[in-house]
This record gives sequence, structure tokens and C-alpha cells, in this order.
Amino acid sequence: MKKQNTGKLKIIPIGGLEQIGMNITAFEYEDSIIVVDCGLAFPEDDMLGVDLVIPDITYLKDNADKLKGFVITHGHEDHIGALPYVLKEINLPLYSTKLTLGIIENKLKEHNLLRSTKRKVVRHGQSINLGKFRIEFIKTNHSIQDASALAIYSPAGIVVHTGDFKVDYTPVFGDAIDLQRFAEIGKKGVLALMSDSTNAERPGFTQSERTVGITFDHIFAEHQNTRLIIATFASNVDRVQQIINSAYKYGRKVVVEGRSMVNIISTASELGYLNVPKNTLIEIDQLKNYPPEKTVLITTGSQGESMAALSRMAADVHRKITIMPNDTVIFSSNPIPGNEKAVSRVINELSAKGANVIFQDVHVSGHACQEELKLIYSLVKPKYAIPVHGEYRHLKANAGIAQSLGIPKENIFILQSGDVLEISEKSAKVVDKVHTGAILVDGLGVGDVGNIVLRDRQHLAEDGIMIVVLSLERGTNRLLAGPDIVSRGFVYVREAEALMEEARQVVEEALEKCLAGKHADWNKIKLTVRDTMNDFIWKRTKRRPMIIPIIMDVDV
Amino acid sequence: MKKQNTGKLKIIPIGGLEQIGMNITAFEYEDSIIVVDCGLAFPEDDMLGVDLVIPDITYLKDNADKLKGFVITHGHEDHIGALPYVLKEINLPLYSTKLTLGIIENKLKEHNLLRSTKRKVVRHGQSINLGKFRIEFIKTNHSIQDASALAIYSPAGIVVHTGDFKVDYTPVFGDAIDLQRFAEIGKKGVLALMSDSTNAERPGFTQSERTVGITFDHIFAEHQNTRLIIATFASNVDRVQQIINSAYKYGRKVVVEGRSMVNIISTASELGYLNVPKNTLIEIDQLKNYPPEKTVLITTGSQGESMAALSRMAADVHRKITIMPNDTVIFSSNPIPGNEKAVSRVINELSAKGANVIFQDVHVSGHACQEELKLIYSLVKPKYAIPVHGEYRHLKANAGIAQSLGIPKENIFILQSGDVLEISEKSAKVVDKVHTGAILVDGLGVGDVGNIVLRDRQHLAEDGIMIVVLSLERGTNRLLAGPDIVSRGFVYVREAEALMEEARQVVEEALEKCLAGKHADWNKIKLTVRDTMNDFIWKRTKRRPMIIPIIMDVDV
Repeated sequence: MKKQNTGKLKIIPIGGLEQIGMNITAFEYEDSIIVVDCGLAFPEDDMLGVDLVIPDITYLKDNADKLKGFVITHGHEDHIGALPYVLKEINLPLYSTKLTLGIIENKLKEHNLLRSTKRKVVRHGQSINLGKFRIEFIKTNHSIQDASALAIYSPAGIVVHTGDFKVDYTPVFGDAIDLQRFAEIGKKGVLALMSDSTNAERPGFTQSERTVGITFDHIFAEHQNTRLIIATFASNVDRVQQIINSAYKYGRKVVVEGRSMVNIISTASELGYLNVPKNTLIEIDQLKNYPPEKTVLITTGSQGESMAALSRMAADVHRKITIMPNDTVIFSSNPIPGNEKAVSRVINELSAKGANVIFQDVHVSGHACQEELKLIYSLVKPKYAIPVHGEYRHLKANAGIAQSLGIPKENIFILQSGDVLEISEKSAKVVDKVHTGAILVDGLGVGDVGNIVLRDRQHLAEDGIMIVVLSLERGTNRLLAGPDIVSRGFVYVREAEALMEEARQVVEEALEKCLAGKHADWNKIKLTVRDTMNDFIWKRTKRRPMIIPIIMDVDV
Repeated sequence: MKKQNTGKLKIIPIGGLEQIGMNITAFEYEDSIIVVDCGLAFPEDDMLGVDLVIPDITYLKDNADKLKGFVITHGHEDHIGALPYVLKEINLPLYSTKLTLGIIENKLKEHNLLRSTKRKVVRHGQSINLGKFRIEFIKTNHSIQDASALAIYSPAGIVVHTGDFKVDYTPVFGDAIDLQRFAEIGKKGVLALMSDSTNAERPGFTQSERTVGITFDHIFAEHQNTRLIIATFASNVDRVQQIINSAYKYGRKVVVEGRSMVNIISTASELGYLNVPKNTLIEIDQLKNYPPEKTVLITTGSQGESMAALSRMAADVHRKITIMPNDTVIFSSNPIPGNEKAVSRVINELSAKGANVIFQDVHVSGHACQEELKLIYSLVKPKYAIPVHGEYRHLKANAGIAQSLGIPKENIFILQSGDVLEISEKSAKVVDKVHTGAILVDGLGVGDVGNIVLRDRQHLAEDGIMIVVLSLERGTNRLLAGPDIVSRGFVYVREAEALMEEARQVVEEALEKCLAGKHADWNKIKLTVRDTMNDFIWKRTKRRPMIIPIIMDVDV
């Protein structure tokens, strides 16, 4: 009789569920924990002034003795971006494919973490042993090269994690997704499939990256008399490769512009993921040596990011490139939700400068649509389905697909970050909830901006601030100076001098009354100033600026 | 020999070009000016705290003696929303169709302008004479009823202005667009066509509003066991009519929820634009008397507006409606650019509460696509084309359509707000530029928030504020109290006590040095405080909060 394994596998998403970004998931079996991915999220609209968001890893720190390593599926920011911050708190070895690690190493260098971080390149098809786990890297396709799915072997069973993926039968570089291996592992019996939900609402199949290359060829053929400027995602090396291919075919020189793109392209070239024909790439300063119609610029800024190269060109503040009436500008991208207006602004600016802007059908997604998800479910045939990577609506759509393929509803888990899913052949159940959260990074500060600061920023942003200062004599509370009023972000003071003077008088009167009273402690004085000012300003303007009363205690 | 008319027509867009919203255009011939529409715009993302934006009408005020009246094409906010503000500055009569005027009158009531404003209902096919102009109202279709195109007859020739329009051969209420009249006027010879560019980038034909009714019927048929909640634009009375029709057919009671929707529906009912079968509409408080599957809610909030009824339901803060796991929620709308994330948030919240959310293919646009624009150009056959209503990219696409139909490039004018286009049979040319602009409305304040205030709000929003106060003895500049530091929106002070104390010390030292010097005037002291603080905070946090030094002058 086969020995029954009594241990249970715990799957704990530390971040990344019901949101885009911040993907990080712990797999725990007895004394072993491995962590899949360690991504950042970009700030939401209400996180004013915040640069980026990283996961709260309290649970990992509390279980530091069990941690075996980070296993990284691919090199996008939402899967690797928090590493430099997290590694400062828990020093763990990293495991990933070559290009992924190359991109991570650029980050580690910037944060002075290269020497202190152990790392190992894993090839597709290869496995690594980490504590009670064995992790196999499986080739997939995505909008960045070298993406992997993971087969996570534990004594409780096999979990397959797709990472971010699509099925591309004709990829630009390297092999198609290793469907046979998915099938083989499926045959062994898979406990759970965790699959990418990003496009789970979209019917059909995502097109091959190669179709974009064909579109590029058409565009190059049709625009032989104009300069071409193509914006795309910095990390999409295959896209860049195809632009270079078309450029070479049509005898154009290629300039790469934008810091993040230059970085990734140089890493990809060094590691052999990009094939550039001799004398094709030129420096931006050499552009003047070629007729415009013999050049193509590949640039960042496809999301309308205000500081990116294309946005600078559109706004006429780029140091080296000026948009000309004959330019053809191509957005090889779709706007990520939330960026639509910014992209549209750049398109308007470019059009107004006379450029011909192409923004439709020059992009394919890197994520699996419904038919691809069905394919993976059907190859892997998991007992449990755990949709990952997406907002709630996407997870739910993925769950719907699983159910339509015959996985019983009670075997499908839409988890929240922090849920502890205990899973075995016999059962699966959320048994606990661990502490998780989002830590805001603002400048050098990690975690020093929280809800109170954000609430204040929101208040300041909407209505500005009025500061009321006064000096009181220590002991007697005699008014020595003030009240003086300073405001910012409220009204343009020169236009509102009368209002401000009236406000001062109203506060002064209230203050005199208050100070004449017997128990005028500072709290009462401040409250009087704040309430009086609030009432007056609301009545007169229907606005509520932040009111800050400041009392100076003067010992004369 | 026919007498040659020597006068020239001037077309002056006061707002609305290269932007969405704030449509207002002056037509001037000798001593007569008529104004077409008077809309507001919604604030851009960088207009922090601003409620709405209205056009600067300096040009109209400067030419008040010529003004004959406002001619309004339809009742959407971007065409009527600025009227209450503008009418307070220039009192002019209003001319529009019945429903349009009914909606305007609701606004005038709120602003106490009903008695002081002359107004006249014009029927489709009817003309009015205003100074040297005759204006004919022509029936069109749009996402609000009673929309009109205008044929503006001047001694210099006829200008046709489409307003916002689509071609709907099978409208829900009233007649299809009066294509015959467009043709007839075209036959007479039209100087210029000003046509709606909103959908000029989209190929094909916009579907009939009636197709949405068919979709509703399918949805009602397929969801007979769940409550239905349908969100759409408040002003789309035809959409509401179709929901009511389906509800009646399937024996459901209808509740209308959301203030703006209740207002417009009651106006439309009173004026006979909505046909509600007896006992179909019920009050929200009566809902409890019916099984959920026998009810349908029509609600505002289809754009994810945080204060709207549907958003409140989704966030579980609606006073009367709680989302139930069996509800079917339908977004009968597309997100307006910029609202995508807000809409997605509401969809996520509804899904997480177990509701089934339908958001695809339950909406048609109210604007003409490329084939409809071609149709209108071909019926009107104008000498000049002036694309209106849209961002630059849309105007340019419309211009491209005009050119593809044989209108010479030099006869197509993409105008900017303020351009004075002088136009006659012989020639057309931008001859002048008049003052225009956007006036920001914030609470009761109209125009008291400008660039400086917005820049300050942006700064405060991103990095917060640090206030440094000190008291100096008058005459001697002896430091009597302070420096004290108060911050908001910068760091959570309890976590950063050490940083704040260090900052205080650094400023104190710099201050002591500065005060010991001979020429320590207040400007120098403030500059010292600001620079010292800026340097210190930047070095330690890589942030730049706004620094406000305040000196109190104390006479002891």
C-alpha cells in the first residue's frame, strides 16, 4: 500500500490578487517556503505623489527560517519590481531564466545588491530543488522573452503556475510554448492550475507576435518617403527585433531612444536575445547624417507617460528630436486602462504638428484569451483551479472558463491576498488569513506615506490650505502678533485680498472673545480658529481648504 | 446683374475646438452676432479640485451691442452647461427645441435665472430671424431627443452646422434625421459645413438606437429569475424608454434612481417625450412589495462616477439598494475616455458581491461614424468644410474624410478656439485671433482658481507641505520663539519624529547664523529657511514638499 502523505501544501498569495501588479505568492510545505515572483504595482489615482507600491512581506519575515528562495517567472515590473526593496529585508537566492535574471541584475546593480544576492540561471526543462519542493521551468510565450510557467512539485501534489503567458505557435525568437510538457505533467495528475486571468474576458485566441512584424513590413512599404517613429514597450524585445528586421529590409538606420529601452535592449543583445545586423543601429546624434526617410526611431512613451521620449517629442521639449510634418508615428501598443487620456493627448499633439499617427492594429497582447486558457486547462486537467493575475472581474471570468470545462464550482478558488489555501488530493480550503498589504514608496521613503498622509494630500489637492498663525505671551495668553493668514492652492490671493482680509477680521474677533474667556487653553483656541475659519470660508466659497492654526508661545 | 454682397461672415469658435466639451461658436455678420451653444467642459486631471470649466466670453462681452441670441442645438451639458454662468454676464434670449429648452429651464430655475431670461421654442423645420441671420432648425438624431442641426442663412451664404448627430433610420421616438432637407439646402448651395467629428476615426455606420432595445429584450428574456439593474446616461431618454418597454413586456416594475436621471425623466415625461404605461413606474420604497425578479432599476453611474447611485450600490453605501448575489447589472454605456478605471472598479465591486455584470454590446454611440459623415457631406456639398466637436485627432480625421470626397485641402479649416474665420463665396481665411480661454469653477468661485493655484495644488498633492514659523522681536530681530515645524501630507509624523526634530535643528542653526549677520532682512531669513529645509529634506527623502516660512513680528 502506498504511503499516505499527511502534510499539506499551503498556497498564500502575498499580493497580486484583485489588482494588476504586485504579484508575489508563497508556497509552503512543512519547513519549506518558496516565493514565486516579487512584483511592484503602480500607484492608483488616489495615491498622490507615490512613486510605486510594493507588497508587505510581514508573513515572509515572520517565517524567515523556512524561506528557500525566489522563483521568478519573467522580467516584467509587476513580477520583479519589488525585489530590490524586499531583498533588503530578506536575503534569499533568486532562480530564473537567463534574460529575466539579466534584467533583475540591472536593478540589483542600481541598489547595490548584486554582491549580496545569490542567483542561479535555470533553463527551460530544468528543475531546481528547494527544501521540500522541486520546481520545473516550462517554456511559455509572453510579451517578453524567456517567460516561464512553473511546475511546483510538493509531497502533497503538483501545482502548475502559468506565469503570464500566451500561446504563440510562431514566436519571433526561440520556441513556442511547450504544450507537450504541460500535457505530460497533466498526465501525471495535477493538483492545481494557477493561470493568467488578464484576458479571460476576451473570446478567441491572441494573435502571434509575428503578425505585428507583417504589419510593420506593410507600414514600411507604404511610408518610404517619411521618417518613422515607433513607440512600444521597452521590454518587448521581440517587437524591437521585428522593427529592426523591417528597417534592415527597407534600408533604414535604427535609433533607440528612451533610457529604459536602451537598457533592456543592451541587456538582451549581450545575452543573445536580439539579433542586430551590422551597421543598422546608429546613435541619435548620427541621425543628421541620413535623410529622414532612411531612418526609424524606436522609442519609449507608448503609454503617454509624460516624461518618456515620445511625449517629450510631442510636446516639443525633446533635446534631440523635433517632430516634422512628414513624420509617421506608430503606437505599437494598446493603452493600459487608466492611460487612455494621456495617450490621446500625445496623439493630439503629434497630429497638430502634422505627423501622421497610426495607433490601430499594430499590437498584439501578451496574455492568453479564452481559447488558450481552455487549451491549458485541457492539457493540465487540474483537480483545482486558482485563477491568478487580474482584477476580480478577470479572475471571475477565468473561474467561469474552468467551470465550463467541468471543474466543479467548489474546486475553483478566487483567492484574496493573504488567504491561506490548504490543499491536498483530498480537499482544499481557505484555512487562515495572514497579514498582507501595500507599502508605498515615495522618493527614498518606503512605508512612511500611509493613509493619513494620502488623505491630507487629497485634501490639499482639492481645496488647498489656509494657515493661521498667532503669537501668544507665555503665561498670560496675551495676543502679541497675528492672526496672520497664509494660503496656498486656495484662491489666487491678489484676486481675493478682500476675502482674505475679511477672513482675518472674522478670526480676530472670534479669537478676542475666546482669549477673554477664562479657560482659553491652546486646544480651545485652535478649535475656535479652525471652526470660525471653516464656517466663514464655506459660507463664502463653498470650499473647505485645510485650516492649520499655529500658535507661537513667546516668552517676553 | 445680381447685387454683390460686400459683407463678410465671420465664424468664431469661442470654445470647443481641440477639446471635448465647452462648445460655443459665434457667427458674426456686420452688426449681428448669434451664438450657437454654450457648453461646459469637465475638468482635466491636472485641474485639481475644480468642479467644472466654462468658456471665457470676453469677445462676446466686448461686442454686447451686436448679440442677438443663443441658438442651442441639444440638451447635453457640453452644449448647454455654461448657460447659467454666461447668462449672468450677458442676458440674451434662448432659442431651441422643446425638450432642450425644458432641460435648460431646470438649470435656470436652480440659478434663479428663469424670470430674467427670454426663451422661445423652435420646431424642426421652423426658422427664426436674428439680426442679419435666419436660422433654420433641422431634425437630426443623437443620444438625446430633439437634437437639431442648424442652417444659418447670412447675406454671405448658408452655413450648415450639424450639432452632435448620427443618422438613425429607425429612431425610438419621433422622426429620422431630415436627410431630404439637408439635400434641399445643399441644392441651394452651401458655403460651409460644420460637422461633428467625435467618431470621425471610426469606419462604418453607427447602429440604430433601436438595436439596443432588441438587446434589452434578449437580456430580459434570458434573466427572468434575477433582478435587473441597468445603468445608462441620465439624458438618454430613448434608452430609458426602451428599458421601460422591455420591462412592461416582461411584467417588471421600474424604479428610476439617481437625481439627474429622475430630473430629466420627469421633464421628458411632462413634455411628452417618454411614454410610460400605467402602473409600470414605482417608487424605490415600494421595491420591497415585489419579488426581485419582477423589478428593474434604471440608474445613474454608468461612468463609475463615485457619487452616483450605481457606485454607491457597488460600494455598499447606497441608502436603499443592496446588491444581491443574484442581481444582473448591465452597463448600457461605453466608458468615456478617462473613466475606464473608475468603471472597472465598479464592475469589480459588483462582481465581488456576486452580481452578474454585462458591459459589452449594450450601447450604441450618438455620433456619426465615417459613412454617415460622407453621407452628410454628399447631401450638403459645401464649398468649405469646418470640422467641429472633438480633439485635434478627431478634427483631422473629419478633415481627411472631407478631402477624400473632393473638397480641396485649402477649403478645409481645422480651427482653434479664438480663430476668426472670414468666409464668403470668394474666399475663406483666418484673419484674426480673439481672446478665449477656460474659466474654472470651484464651489461658488468662478475664475478665482487659476494657474498659480493649480500649480500649488499639484505641488501640495505630490509632496505635501512643511510650515516653518518663528517669532522675531520687532526692531532687534531677536528670535523669541520657534522655529516650529508643522507638516501635512509629507510623512506620517509619528513615524518620522526624528527626521522632523533633525530638520528643526538644521533650520535653527542656519537661522542663528543668518540672524547674527548684519543685513538679515525678512526676505533673506525666509530664503535661508526655505533653502536649508529644501536641501535637508531632499537629501534625506528625495522629496520636495512645499516649504512655507512664516515670520511673526512681535512687539514686546
